[in-house]
Amino acid sequence: MPRPSSRTYHDPLHGAITLDGADPTEALLIQLIDTPAFQRLRRIRQLGPASLTFHGAEGSRFTHSLGVMYVARRIFDRLTARYPVLQQHRTVTLCAALLHDLGHGPFSHTSEEIFQSSHEFWTRRILRESPEIRGYLNAVSPSLADQIAQVYLKQSPVPLISQLITSQLDCDRLDYLMRDSYFTGASYGKLDLDRIVLALDYDPVTQQLVVARKGLAAIEHYLVVRYFMYAQVYNHPKNIAASWILERILHRARQLLGRLPIDVTLLAWLTKPNESLTLKEYLKADDGLLMYHFQQWSDYEDDILSDLCRRYCDRNLFKTKSISALSDAARQSIFSKARTLLRQQGFNPDYYLTVQTSTTRGYTLYQKGINLLSDQGICELSELSPLVQTLTQPSHRAWLIYPREIEPQLWAD
Amino acid sequence: MPRPSSRTYHDPLHGAITLDGADPTEALLIQLIDTPAFQRLRRIRQLGPASLTFHGAEGSRFTHSLGVMYVARRIFDRLTARYPVLQQHRTVTLCAALLHDLGHGPFSHTSEEIFQSSHEFWTRRILRESPEIRGYLNAVSPSLADQIAQVYLKQSPVPLISQLITSQLDCDRLDYLMRDSYFTGASYGKLDLDRIVLALDYDPVTQQLVVARKGLAAIEHYLVVRYFMYAQVYNHPKNIAASWILERILHRARQLLGRLPIDVTLLAWLTKPNESLTLKEYLKADDGLLMYHFQQWSDYEDDILSDLCRRYCDRNLFKTKSISALSDAARQSIFSKARTLLRQQGFNPDYYLTVQTSTTRGYTLYQKGINLLSDQGICELSELSPLVQTLTQPSHRAWLIYPREIEPQLWAD
Amino acid sequence: MPRPSSRTYHDPLHGAITLDGADPTEALLIQLIDTPAFQRLRRIRQLGPASLTFHGAEGSRFTHSLGVMYVARRIFDRLTARYPVLQQHRTVTLCAALLHDLGHGPFSHTSEEIFQSSHEFWTRRILRESPEIRGYLNAVSPSLADQIAQVYLKQSPVPLISQLITSQLDCDRLDYLMRDSYFTGASYGKLDLDRIVLALDYDPVTQQLVVARKGLAAIEHYLVVRYFMYAQVYNHPKNIAASWILERILHRARQLLGRLPIDVTLLAWLTKPNESLTLKEYLKADDGLLMYHFQQWSDYEDDILSDLCRRYCDRNLFKTKSISALSDAARQSIFSKARTLLRQQGFNPDYYLTVQTSTTRGYTLYQKGINLLSDQGICELSELSPLVQTLTQPSHRAWLIYPREIEPQLWAD
Amino acid sequence: MPRPSSRTYHDPLHGAITLDGADPTEALLIQLIDTPAFQRLRRIRQLGPASLTFHGAEGSRFTHSLGVMYVARRIFDRLTARYPVLQQHRTVTLCAALLHDLGHGPFSHTSEEIFQSSHEFWTRRILRESPEIRGYLNAVSPSLADQIAQVYLKQSPVPLISQLITSQLDCDRLDYLMRDSYFTGASYGKLDLDRIVLALDYDPVTQQLVVARKGLAAIEHYLVVRYFMYAQVYNHPKNIAASWILERILHRARQLLGRLPIDVTLLAWLTKPNESLTLKEYLKADDGLLMYHFQQWSDYEDDILSDLCRRYCDRNLFKTKSISALSDAARQSIFSKARTLLRQQGFNPDYYLTVQTSTTRGYTLYQKGINLLSDQGICELSELSPLVQTLTQPSHRAWLIYPREIEPQLWAD
Repeated sequence: MPRPSSRTYHDPLHGAITLDGADPTEALLIQLIDTPAFQRLRRIRQLGPASLTFHGAEGSRFTHSLGVMYVARRIFDRLTARYPVLQQHRTVTLCAALLHDLGHGPFSHTSEEIFQSSHEFWTRRILRESPEIRGYLNAVSPSLADQIAQVYLKQSPVPLISQLITSQLDCDRLDYLMRDSYFTGASYGKLDLDRIVLALDYDPVTQQLVVARKGLAAIEHYLVVRYFMYAQVYNHPKNIAASWILERILHRARQLLGRLPIDVTLLAWLTKPNESLTLKEYLKADDGLLMYHFQQWSDYEDDILSDLCRRYCDRNLFKTKSISALSDAARQSIFSKARTLLRQQGFNPDYYLTVQTSTTRGYTLYQKGINLLSDQGICELSELSPLVQTLTQPSHRAWLIYPREIEPQLWAD
Repeated sequence: MPRPSSRTYHDPLHGAITLDGADPTEALLIQLIDTPAFQRLRRIRQLGPASLTFHGAEGSRFTHSLGVMYVARRIFDRLTARYPVLQQHRTVTLCAALLHDLGHGPFSHTSEEIFQSSHEFWTRRILRESPEIRGYLNAVSPSLADQIAQVYLKQSPVPLISQLITSQLDCDRLDYLMRDSYFTGASYGKLDLDRIVLALDYDPVTQQLVVARKGLAAIEHYLVVRYFMYAQVYNHPKNIAASWILERILHRARQLLGRLPIDVTLLAWLTKPNESLTLKEYLKADDGLLMYHFQQWSDYEDDILSDLCRRYCDRNLFKTKSISALSDAARQSIFSKARTLLRQQGFNPDYYLTVQTSTTRGYTLYQKGINLLSDQGICELSELSPLVQTLTQPSHRAWLIYPREIEPQLWAD
Repeated sequence: MPRPSSRTYHDPLHGAITLDGADPTEALLIQLIDTPAFQRLRRIRQLGPASLTFHGAEGSRFTHSLGVMYVARRIFDRLTARYPVLQQHRTVTLCAALLHDLGHGPFSHTSEEIFQSSHEFWTRRILRESPEIRGYLNAVSPSLADQIAQVYLKQSPVPLISQLITSQLDCDRLDYLMRDSYFTGASYGKLDLDRIVLALDYDPVTQQLVVARKGLAAIEHYLVVRYFMYAQVYNHPKNIAASWILERILHRARQLLGRLPIDVTLLAWLTKPNESLTLKEYLKADDGLLMYHFQQWSDYEDDILSDLCRRYCDRNLFKTKSISALSDAARQSIFSKARTLLRQQGFNPDYYLTVQTSTTRGYTLYQKGINLLSDQGICELSELSPLVQTLTQPSHRAWLIYPREIEPQLWAD
Repeated sequence: MPRPSSRTYHDPLHGAITLDGADPTEALLIQLIDTPAFQRLRRIRQLGPASLTFHGAEGSRFTHSLGVMYVARRIFDRLTARYPVLQQHRTVTLCAALLHDLGHGPFSHTSEEIFQSSHEFWTRRILRESPEIRGYLNAVSPSLADQIAQVYLKQSPVPLISQLITSQLDCDRLDYLMRDSYFTGASYGKLDLDRIVLALDYDPVTQQLVVARKGLAAIEHYLVVRYFMYAQVYNHPKNIAASWILERILHRARQLLGRLPIDVTLLAWLTKPNESLTLKEYLKADDGLLMYHFQQWSDYEDDILSDLCRRYCDRNLFKTKSISALSDAARQSIFSKARTLLRQQGFNPDYYLTVQTSTTRGYTLYQKGINLLSDQGICELSELSPLVQTLTQPSHRAWLIYPREIEPQLWAD
């Protein structure tokens, strides 16, 4: 069989991403990309329902996964030129980067909450059980799939490898912050990838990923951007409201099972514990499966289900009102008033009223932090940066979420 | 009822697109955007199956439509500052820009070919029949819907208005060329929108859109980019191959009707003449409806249908080989050889073998061309530009399309 | 005389900046741009010696001044659409934006330190005394020049106007941060101008520029970028070292006056108190005047002067070593050692050794701060933003600066 | 001596350009950059007087030279990965790329016309005679300087090397087209560098640079952009008018020698045949030398010289009127009328009136063309591309250039 030829993906963010078919690792990456399990990521949006709030956020996990692989390759190959001992880990690193999101379900993180699903669990299971993926990996080395799984579990023999894929400064975050800011039109989210790449180094003693002292500003900037993106985009109240409608729709659908038209895949998702799904059942689910049902159910006889589905499909979302500054008593009072109003207008408050909260933090200490290489050796990033210390303080916000139908009365005196 | 407040869409291409709720026209635009018929465009990709070839091409008609409205507003408001007589046409122009793609069906242009559907027909019908859209338009003026329809039919009383929305130099093309080049990573497609906007003028005598002599280069460049985008992106052989599989899937499904699991909407699309569909049947169809069925049919008992569906969903597309340089006899010969090989391997050539052609032309003369305002008065653009004359020459290409399974034998001596 | 026609500047940052000759204010701006005093800004680099450290920083004050006018017009015209009462201040505002840097001398801020010059003083004096500029302003209104000067003195009748031109959130800073980050290749400096513009509002009661609550993040981001640009670009040690050489060259030249070849303009600058210079003497000086002399003096017989000039022209700058973390005693000790080594090698420490310090602060409270419009009325920005509070903490740094010739011995044990 | 450490230039166009001090070739590049002869390029603008027409065009040859080296390294290293036999030519190639503009004089190409100077001649002479540059090159190999000179003379043993540095598709053009379009705000000039790099290949048989068939569109686009940049930027009539004033100033200065204040360097340039200048005399000249004199001469007693100098310094340029469409007789007639008007108003037509012409051609056949690798072997690019054939047709333009003082009468009937 002739070796697969080279392939180039032209990416709006990173430019030409070329995989060299003559390089065994990159030939493997091409094979992995071409598997059904990986192609399925084209049908799962990176930001779930966020495109209802940021209209440009229509990109898929497929696109993002290529980007993570590209960023990882760029950083890894630069470090390997300095520390050739790392070369032996290239295949594991690049495969782990490419495949890290393999296990995502419909609407990405949103469905994890709704179905108590864990994309990390499923990524590892697909690695193990998908015949195509397992086959290509085994053809290189029977232990490769396990080594990749170890990376995700932060147990790779060389800590650097896990840190490149899953840490507070990993290639996943670098790509998604760049990509999401680009597609949501949030110019402030532009990272200085060149400077970040130059800032990263490898400490051969501890085998850790470290930040060089002179790269501190680039990393501080990255953390500030991350803070802004969480505060402004990921935790945007309209996005939280959209996710909550999704959750309510599926909750309602569960109540109606038996009568409701539903296909076997979604039925399995709604009735089985998530980890008991067969691989086939898991992989058949994607954003389109849910959207198809929401559109069907828009005409269904149950008023709550059909109304919520129409609201989601037609982007007639709930209002969100910040109650962060209100006392507990004031929150309770407005919540009660809203409930009364809803009842008067024939809405069931269980499906039409909620308080949702978010906590945004730019940097966390209790998790494994970021290593800074200073004149005094390796230290924790926040020790030397007042800016990063500020970012460790959580910012809590809360919103009342309700349909626009009660808007005027709710805030009238 | 309080007037709708302002709204800002942050667009990756155009930056902040703000609609001012205190301006009656822009308040109307906000209302139109919020209708189910317009929100449906979020579920129809701008480039149909092209994301299988250009992975970033995941944007929707919704996003594009906002962009067209933005470009139209920018050009129109600049011309109106010079020619205040145009001001009265602002509502018609901006509505026509926003709504021009309302009638697109699943996979955009691809489904027009498959279902003999016309998105212009449906745009006009939705304008007429959609209660929400018709209602908002009528509230402004009972004749507004008709005036908008006239724009699309190139019958607006002031030719400029139709030319801004549908001509060889319209806001639709300006937005989609910029947008598609951006998302397909084709940097060469970057238009110089500033210079194009400055180049456009209005001729009060003929009431036509004209290009000022000093803006010639910007328009030449636009036409060159258009030529490249057609040659390299829209008519990319892989894209043509993907569209053909789509067509074959639906053709096969039609053969199997009666036995095949299918929902009522798709059934209506496959059995009725397209223009006989009810508005509701038409609007229920989107990319997701087809993709849902393709995934279901991937397990169906008919080998051809399930295989084609899997190929499409898993992006296991057919090979494409340019036969542009071959004589008719040579084309015939290789086609016969392919057919024989396919039969030997158990493939039905009707579903696995085709010749597809494309004709790319950067500029057409027989349609209404572009007016250039030279020292000698208005003339046809190509008369003064050798570059544009070259672009009028059509470029024909042809490809043989077949499954990779016969690849090695097909080209062996 | 026919009214001046329109004019378009194509700017790498802002795109097409069109001045409409039919608008009296913009026609005046065209006239002002065409004066010798304004054209002179083409010969003064925005960042003085910084291009020796950031090679792309070659842009002039001319370019920046156009940008400030553009940003001011964009913000002002948006506010005027909401508060038509502001319209009467348009001419003052745009002229003040355009002309704000008129008084800059050679190497911009660097020469202010060396010659105890104040560009604000000279901007006002040029406004008053330049016959062309004064003439064009007077033709519009005899008080216009004074009104513009008031803006710079923060005494405009409507505080908003001064705040747009000179405050911690003014159009000057917005343009230079965007421009400098762009040309120094510091991607992290990209501002989200769209969101900043949308965040700014006018409070008709206090007549102040205020930030809307929902625009807080955009302004926080702006201040973070400003902090980074000061820490990483403006106060870069190499830049500080280059400025110090400039200062030493001119100090040495003063010692040698009488013997040294020098033209009359530079002689006046070196011998007269800066504010006693005639307008003509002031305006004849630019970056080129100094660079010309440095190149002439590179061959002059005084070893110190010629050596320093060669070092500057050939970019053979001094080494910089951070001593921020050293105790006073340690600093004293290394300074003494450096002095001894220099003397041993025949260098005069007065010209070859210094400690330079910088203080970077992202936001200052004691100056007039930024107004935030919260639910509780106008408050100081830092009260509601922990991030901005952090930026008010000054960051002090210190460097030892010395020639590379003593590098190895200086740090040997 | 410790090996020079790595160095990074952050470029607005190319991002981080890192030179690895541990790589002998790149260490040599760092040494060459640090020589006075190379640093001098900071004082020579890439586009000479063009910033008077395109205000952003303020970048230097220094900046461009780094960019050419970067582009050359990117293309060369990609080709070397496929054809390791090329590796031995890396030092020559990268040095030739970096140093290709070493010989440019004041105002770049403009001074070549005025002083009958050839930057290629001086580049080779500096290579040979500059002690620092020659020294660093000799330290690597005594033949290196000669090998670099051969590249410029299109005589390198492997034709590819010369083609990368000086051909119709070389790294010089790639960088300057990208850079100039960026800084002049001409968005249409954006090249798709990724696709161009991927399009380039090496033919081991002929040792030529070739374009792969599938890269044809990227190269066509490059040639179209080049055509536009020449037509719109380099041959802009205002730019031609500015260059002509420069020429007239120096012509007038030559008439006044003996009386005129002038320094020895400029005196040498004005009196000696250009190739007879000493290396020191040549290298002392830069843009600043001329600008310094123009400002001095603005007050000189000769009316013509002082007026022309003021016009140049204050950007009070001549009017330009296209006469391309006029017959010879009509040109002659308007020229005579202009001469008469000038004489009446006391202007000497020798210094105030000219006809200037330009010829723009996007591609030339008679020079060495671009090789396309088609199925039929290597052929000339234009044979397969109608677009490129069109670009070979020259476009001639002509302008009448005269002071605005005669504008109204000149065109009155």
